Amino acid sequence: MSLLIIGSVAFDILETPFGKTDKILGGAAPFIGLAASYSVKPVNLVAVVGDDFPQADILLLQEHGVDTEGLQIRAGEKSFSWSGKYSQDLSTRETIATELNVLADFDPVIPHSYLDCKYLMLGNLSPQVQRLVIQRLVNRPKLIVMDTMNFWMDSALEELKTTIEMVDVLCINDEEARQLSGEHSLVKAAKSIMALGPKFLIIKKGEHGALLFHKHKVFYAPALPLEEVFDPTGAGDTFAGGFIGYLAATDDNSFENMKRAVIHGSAMASFCVEKFGTERLLHLSPEEIEAREAQFADLVRVLPETAIANVPAV
Amino acid sequence: MSLLIIGSVAFDILETPFGKTDKILGGAAPFIGLAASYSVKPVNLVAVVGDDFPQADILLLQEHGVDTEGLQIRAGEKSFSWSGKYSQDLSTRETIATELNVLADFDPVIPHSYLDCKYLMLGNLSPQVQRLVIQRLVNRPKLIVMDTMNFWMDSALEELKTTIEMVDVLCINDEEARQLSGEHSLVKAAKSIMALGPKFLIIKKGEHGALLFHKHKVFYAPALPLEEVFDPTGAGDTFAGGFIGYLAATDDNSFENMKRAVIHGSAMASFCVEKFGTERLLHLSPEEIEAREAQFADLVRVLPETAIANVPAV
Repeated sequence: MSLLIIGSVAFDILETPFGKTDKILGGAAPFIGLAASYSVKPVNLVAVVGDDFPQADILLLQEHGVDTEGLQIRAGEKSFSWSGKYSQDLSTRETIATELNVLADFDPVIPHSYLDCKYLMLGNLSPQVQRLVIQRLVNRPKLIVMDTMNFWMDSALEELKTTIEMVDVLCINDEEARQLSGEHSLVKAAKSIMALGPKFLIIKKGEHGALLFHKHKVFYAPALPLEEVFDPTGAGDTFAGGFIGYLAATDDNSFENMKRAVIHGSAMASFCVEKFGTERLLHLSPEEIEAREAQFADLVRVLPETAIANVPAV
Repeated sequence: MSLLIIGSVAFDILETPFGKTDKILGGAAPFIGLAASYSVKPVNLVAVVGDDFPQADILLLQEHGVDTEGLQIRAGEKSFSWSGKYSQDLSTRETIATELNVLADFDPVIPHSYLDCKYLMLGNLSPQVQRLVIQRLVNRPKLIVMDTMNFWMDSALEELKTTIEMVDVLCINDEEARQLSGEHSLVKAAKSIMALGPKFLIIKKGEHGALLFHKHKVFYAPALPLEEVFDPTGAGDTFAGGFIGYLAATDDNSFENMKRAVIHGSAMASFCVEKFGTERLLHLSPEEIEAREAQFADLVRVLPETAIANVPAV
């Protein structure tokens, strides 16, 4: 099923305890697009860069099945760039610099050939831009998934809520869920956030996995306990890309299938953190992905399940 | 199979956002004993209290199948007591007062009838006292499970390591695992800690569940996302009691059965936090426990599992 994604395309400059990078391909959209491309092609991209953006990176996206007709290249302007430095244990990061550049007044123009989009992934961007994309599509997509972050909760809460009301699946982390709802309990937070509109809510908990909520149901996807995380940048976007890619490919938006999509997204994210930036997402084989998903299934498998029962007191 | 438990027996005075208690039954051993009693009886207890300890609490333990022949009642002395106050979101707690009293020089005398113990649960106490219990048993138990806490890592690290070397299963939380190993990655921490002696390691992560490690294998038990936690006191001890109780009842210490024991322990702990102190552990029915375990199984179940596979690119 046709998939449209929007999100930032950026230069990232990263520093982790394991090394530093020069300007490398970053931003939400490349992670989302590359992750989704393992499930569905083409991935139609609406985004903006400056004319300083390397042709090689555009070719790289194209080679992975990302259609870049919707990628605006603004002459005489500079691409969005972000540089950050991670703490020793990678649990926190400090933003060294953010240059919005072309992102400051991004007008998401949707190519005619993208308009029949059935699956829409709104990567993290201002909620106004995210909403404009929904409004510009001819028909409402079958499924809209939205990612966002605390920045918009702090600076544009009402705009954010208006956009959240229009989507089917909201994807945020635990601290953002607590901030958005004012509730500490994630179960209460989920109820309060789904009352804003989304029928499904994914709460990402990093190394602690992810929760998928729908009505009164909840699914707990573990994270793979990893020996080494090399660079966490883009893990959340990769998760989202894997998630919507799986759904677009299977075209089944039941709670049961969303669970599988969450596992698939988690598996893709577990690859992402193994190398800098998008590097690990460039050459995955279907066998590798399948093996990783099997690890996730093994992690929580208790056999025989019928044997999990209370043992009567003797 | 015969089960021996040791641990503190205390007066707790608790304050949570939901209320305050007077002196109520607390300490590691009552939580462990009550939780285990749903799987195996009797639960043989070695512990110490002063003569201020209410006869009613001793009767309550006995009624639940806890044998108190090994509970020393020291005349003219006062029981161990602890008072603490939890933060608004229950994620942290402040110790208001700790009075060691009889615990300061506890000598764990083991009644003759307890000596054939096959399963031994060393609840949190000084590592010297924990070790004495192992040394005083005629035969080495079939399985020794040990709980401890950061306090002993700060104050008696070498003693602690000597005791850890002698046990089969160590049960600690994530921060303690990081402190004990000096590793941030829990996978690396687990390797390093198992190298000290224990063949199995359980890392408890509170609201994020628990990890069971054995050789190169890992099992992830989720925690039940709860709408309301009323009082977290004793949850870890209840987990440990449920865990060893399940193993003592089934007498199967394979990795597969330990997974079931972890789920059972998690289910028992999820009851514990619903009321103050041990209250919720007093009148559980087998049906309630079974239903709760089924919730844990549902939480991670993806059906059909064979459908979790990478979707080939189209």
